[in-house]
Amino acid sequence: MLEKRFENLMEREKFDGIVALSPVNVLYLSGVILDTQKLIPDRLAIVVWPATSAPALIICSIEETLTRAQSRIEDIRTYVEFKESPIEVLAKVIKEKHLDKARIGIEKRYIHVEYFEEIRSALPDVCFVGCDRELDIVRSVKSADELALLRRAAMATDKAIAQGFGESHVGCDERFIADRMRDAMYKNGAEEMTFLCMGGGNHSIESHHHACDLKLKLGDVLRVDIGGCFKGYFSDMARTAVMGRPGNSEAAAYQAVWDVMEAVIDAVKPGIEARELYLIYKNQFTARGLDIRMSHVGHSLGIKLHELPILTPFEKQILEPDMVFQIELVNVTGGNLYHNEDQVVVTTKGHEVVSRSRDWSRLFQIT
Amino acid sequence: MLEKRFENLMEREKFDGIVALSPVNVLYLSGVILDTQKLIPDRLAIVVWPATSAPALIICSIEETLTRAQSRIEDIRTYVEFKESPIEVLAKVIKEKHLDKARIGIEKRYIHVEYFEEIRSALPDVCFVGCDRELDIVRSVKSADELALLRRAAMATDKAIAQGFGESHVGCDERFIADRMRDAMYKNGAEEMTFLCMGGGNHSIESHHHACDLKLKLGDVLRVDIGGCFKGYFSDMARTAVMGRPGNSEAAAYQAVWDVMEAVIDAVKPGIEARELYLIYKNQFTARGLDIRMSHVGHSLGIKLHELPILTPFEKQILEPDMVFQIELVNVTGGNLYHNEDQVVVTTKGHEVVSRSRDWSRLFQIT
Repeated sequence: MLEKRFENLMEREKFDGIVALSPVNVLYLSGVILDTQKLIPDRLAIVVWPATSAPALIICSIEETLTRAQSRIEDIRTYVEFKESPIEVLAKVIKEKHLDKARIGIEKRYIHVEYFEEIRSALPDVCFVGCDRELDIVRSVKSADELALLRRAAMATDKAIAQGFGESHVGCDERFIADRMRDAMYKNGAEEMTFLCMGGGNHSIESHHHACDLKLKLGDVLRVDIGGCFKGYFSDMARTAVMGRPGNSEAAAYQAVWDVMEAVIDAVKPGIEARELYLIYKNQFTARGLDIRMSHVGHSLGIKLHELPILTPFEKQILEPDMVFQIELVNVTGGNLYHNEDQVVVTTKGHEVVSRSRDWSRLFQIT
Repeated sequence: MLEKRFENLMEREKFDGIVALSPVNVLYLSGVILDTQKLIPDRLAIVVWPATSAPALIICSIEETLTRAQSRIEDIRTYVEFKESPIEVLAKVIKEKHLDKARIGIEKRYIHVEYFEEIRSALPDVCFVGCDRELDIVRSVKSADELALLRRAAMATDKAIAQGFGESHVGCDERFIADRMRDAMYKNGAEEMTFLCMGGGNHSIESHHHACDLKLKLGDVLRVDIGGCFKGYFSDMARTAVMGRPGNSEAAAYQAVWDVMEAVIDAVKPGIEARELYLIYKNQFTARGLDIRMSHVGHSLGIKLHELPILTPFEKQILEPDMVFQIELVNVTGGNLYHNEDQVVVTTKGHEVVSRSRDWSRLFQIT
């Protein structure tokens, strides 16, 4: 799947080669997960992929053993940190591949200005063209393996949320619930907790609140938004609960966000533009007199947390089978934020929701 | 502390202002921790700090509530994601501050090429100068609060390692030990597990191995390297253990790495160049006939995992009181990797080791 879409991109954009440096695209092209590439961004890893010859992978010598064990790319070059610049090695490889007068796609939305100046002065005759969006679009259609991984990650996360809610009680604090969800995430196979936003009572409306010692009392609304990393692939799920029985206004506020989310999900099918999904949210929220707060109603995900297509009012990318979306909606009313997020896979004829470990159509009650 | 060193930088470099965009420097200058700035790098947060007027902070509207609660900078501007470019807002603020013909320091080792091209075409008369290293140097001397936070983080991490070793036994697998250390990290106050590298037996020599189901048998050497995040500040500690009693060669290999680390630590004092510490390692390892593998023997840390000064053979930065170092050494011999890392604070007269929750001078035995 990768090879064909990637080759098409090269041909369509008339690239003689592509240089990828971001953790996302290095992983996508080489199969190697390098933790330190994220933790120490100066420790560059670089894929050089010529259109007509074999690719090479440049890494810091510290990562050689791990890289050789994982890499799909056979030709591995190393540099010694602080002693050599990775960009010097890159220039050497580009020359060796006879690309030093070529048109090369590069991640202009990743590489920083100083490295770019260095590579341009080493290779003044190369025409470097940004290819970030194009690579994002290549990645936006998933393979069967990727779909299976993402589904497993979403379901594991949904179960962790349900378990955390289930083990909690009125009067416990936010941290108690967060600890249970985090434990369940690791038990369910997450290698990393990427984020855990949780807010109850007054905190529910803070977009990215960290669980604290706020004790939750009867009637408080509790919102969680959790993501983890599973073999390099992300999950991102949001759910809402209430302490005790919801009042009529809480139940209605939740019902609204659920129903509109269902309407957005119902519309998912191949052939429509991403922005059409946003429009459904906008029209239905307007018709119901609800506040339009969201700049998007969801996003794809994979080895990046927010991937294209993002469901903004402006995105014209066409939905295709085997794309994956996190469809998410929030409704802010009465000082509370109600949030739901589900994973939806585009199928040949429509869609499939793959992230519900239980029925969430009614507001979850923590007793 | 911040204000003075930061002002000095502006004056010395003749900057009319500084634009900071990295999560590290935005946190340093504003006090705001924005998780999504790391998770979704396009969701820019930007500090504009003029030399002679009040600073401003530009953030995505989604983060407004959280930012207003945390920010030391009062003037907060927002942009709506996907609808407006954060760079347009930046250009507007720079004009408003009368800096549109000024000399401005900017993080050229963070801002990517596409954003930089956008800001340059919006403000063609501004002279943008890279100020990354200069900001790193400002941050390299810590305040008393920062020293306390870092010491707490290091000690919490060291205790988590000791606890994980202590609760393990011959025959358990790597994951069993890793789970115990991670639990202890959260219990000891980590808000985030940043990395957990653990390898026993054949895995000890892999730089960044993830704990797996390998069962550890008598005589296996086990190396861990763990970091977490505590209120935005990192920890980074490494220790080594052996299953059962070490043989003579294992005990000697550990003794060598310990003794040389002690020699490096002993030399830490104000006034020396960072590279002098590397030289001690190089000379002592050479004299002992050991393999020189490390490209550095430690690094500072703070709100970035590897901060300046980094103890490479080339770094001429002078040590000053209230700098913090993670001094670390590895010895690879007999197919095993022995690794130790400690936090050392530079004092007015010498140094203080602040990260030992127990005596690590002999190889830890897991029985």
